[in-house]
Amino acid sequence: MEQQRYHMAVVGATGAVGEQILHILEERQFPIATLKLLSSKRSAGKRVLFKGEPYIVEEATPNVFDGVDIAIFSAGGSVSKALVPEAVQRGVVCVDNTSAFRMTEGVPLVVPEVNESDLAQHQGIIANPNCSTIQMVVALEPIRKQLGLKKIIVSTYQAVSGAGLAAVEEMREQTRALLNNEQPEAAVLPVGSEKKHYPIAFNAIPQIDVFQENGYTFEEMKMIQETKKIMHMPTLEVAATCVRLPIETGHSESIYFETETGGASVQEMKELLASAPGVTVQDEPSAQVYPMATTSVGQKDVFVGRIRRDLDRDNGYHAWVVSDNLVKGAAWNSVQIAESLARLQLVRKTGAVQ
Amino acid sequence: MEQQRYHMAVVGATGAVGEQILHILEERQFPIATLKLLSSKRSAGKRVLFKGEPYIVEEATPNVFDGVDIAIFSAGGSVSKALVPEAVQRGVVCVDNTSAFRMTEGVPLVVPEVNESDLAQHQGIIANPNCSTIQMVVALEPIRKQLGLKKIIVSTYQAVSGAGLAAVEEMREQTRALLNNEQPEAAVLPVGSEKKHYPIAFNAIPQIDVFQENGYTFEEMKMIQETKKIMHMPTLEVAATCVRLPIETGHSESIYFETETGGASVQEMKELLASAPGVTVQDEPSAQVYPMATTSVGQKDVFVGRIRRDLDRDNGYHAWVVSDNLVKGAAWNSVQIAESLARLQLVRKTGAVQ
Repeated sequence: MEQQRYHMAVVGATGAVGEQILHILEERQFPIATLKLLSSKRSAGKRVLFKGEPYIVEEATPNVFDGVDIAIFSAGGSVSKALVPEAVQRGVVCVDNTSAFRMTEGVPLVVPEVNESDLAQHQGIIANPNCSTIQMVVALEPIRKQLGLKKIIVSTYQAVSGAGLAAVEEMREQTRALLNNEQPEAAVLPVGSEKKHYPIAFNAIPQIDVFQENGYTFEEMKMIQETKKIMHMPTLEVAATCVRLPIETGHSESIYFETETGGASVQEMKELLASAPGVTVQDEPSAQVYPMATTSVGQKDVFVGRIRRDLDRDNGYHAWVVSDNLVKGAAWNSVQIAESLARLQLVRKTGAVQ
Repeated sequence: MEQQRYHMAVVGATGAVGEQILHILEERQFPIATLKLLSSKRSAGKRVLFKGEPYIVEEATPNVFDGVDIAIFSAGGSVSKALVPEAVQRGVVCVDNTSAFRMTEGVPLVVPEVNESDLAQHQGIIANPNCSTIQMVVALEPIRKQLGLKKIIVSTYQAVSGAGLAAVEEMREQTRALLNNEQPEAAVLPVGSEKKHYPIAFNAIPQIDVFQENGYTFEEMKMIQETKKIMHMPTLEVAATCVRLPIETGHSESIYFETETGGASVQEMKELLASAPGVTVQDEPSAQVYPMATTSVGQKDVFVGRIRRDLDRDNGYHAWVVSDNLVKGAAWNSVQIAESLARLQLVRKTGAVQ
């Protein structure tokens, strides 16, 4: 039997994550029959190379999804809210990178290393979790399986590319200005649509996404709620503080967690993680080996280091978890979902090309 | 009665913290009779202005401490280990900014807002705590007093100026190189004396100071042990993860803490902190008001914001605490100690000028 090939669409093809999706689809040799690159009206008409062939970016409208098997959406929540239902109606299986449907009942929220089997329940939409959630659950799932998990307290160190290419450009401009003793200008971060903007260059901004009634930001609530959904643990204790930093790419996380079963040694934790899918352990304090944002760039894995036992609680541990927020945090996890859908034959049969 | 005036010495007068000490002594109009600016042999001979008058920096040797009443040391642990005992022998009261004597039995480790009364026990040496410890205990002490304190988990976001002027210059050079698509060079951070150095520009390095046997860094152990000593709580649960970031000045901390008495509202916490010495509350999420590294620069206070209740534990809280690491984290706290010593008449009487 010949390999099944799929009619694919990538929505938001010219964005920071879109670029990575195309790069990874190429690299993984995903079985593509036809490929549509879609974007807003503004970016339509751009020419993009895929496997050396030129593609013209088209405007994303409901009708362009006719005949598509799998669409990966990465063009912001409002685009997904408007177009994902249209695509689903046309029989497309949508992998959505935005927060639009993540907490919707019946929409699987999937990190393949953790809950691939949830894909079987899909009704046309599979949500890709938030970048900072993905790397945390990849690192903690092998521990949860073996030792159980009671509590997570995470503080993040998030890169500006998570806010898009405009945020990266803003950080670079501000940095140049400050090195020349000029005033930095801010118009994008922390949140484009908010009233106030603050320079990120040489700064730390404790706001990612908008504030909720309870004083947490939406980014923090995403980490809390998504982790419970992905791990099927509605009563897991999770708290998050999310911070934007002057780092181009690579999210880092300082994670404290308590297991159900205490007493595991650092060595046992390292072995447990070293054999887990999608995890690379970088943890040799005596040789100054630990994960860093800059060394994670372009890598698919989640890097874990600085593993140590809490000094007060027998079931408490600390770890430092780093991953490329555009790759495993977005593009690679989406392509992994598409690969899983293909392997598990969960793409609708009608449109697939034999 | 005329105000008592003191023969002062500042050791490490040409360093990042030394500069701030002189600035704050001027600003506070500390009652100085005579002032000696001391340094290593390398910086001796430099000319420094104090209150508009030129001073020549002298090499710090044992004999220059003859006749000095108060010396503030900020020239590294090895200098303090060699010279503080010599100065004490000569009757000098030494305020030491290094980690050399902080955990020594009988040496008060003082943050005036928290444990000024410990000064009475001094035997010639008063230790100034680590910068990241100081701002944390200033923020948590009013809460401890009112509600009790059981547990602290802190993740830090530390500026490079904490590692000295060479680290600041290194970060700037690396940043310039990366903006010009050149390779950054690293020779100072994370720790000058370590084998490996990593670029801090656009990066996060989870190592400050050297690693201990237990997998924690010395910086992390300083935060843990110093907090217990300052608060007189040997059984307080404290854990720390310390991270260096591409920020010039201003340390930030994401702090989770559990009180003895649960149930206090965020509003009650804010009121409690707003009336505490040395604390400024900056916490209005709806107006995007929260502390940031860049807005803390040059300020003496510790800024607290993002105060919110843990979503799982009734006695759990989260806060974001920022302060200028060179000012309250070092220079201002040292001058505060000197002011307290003077006010409490804890400087030896013989040398003081009436």
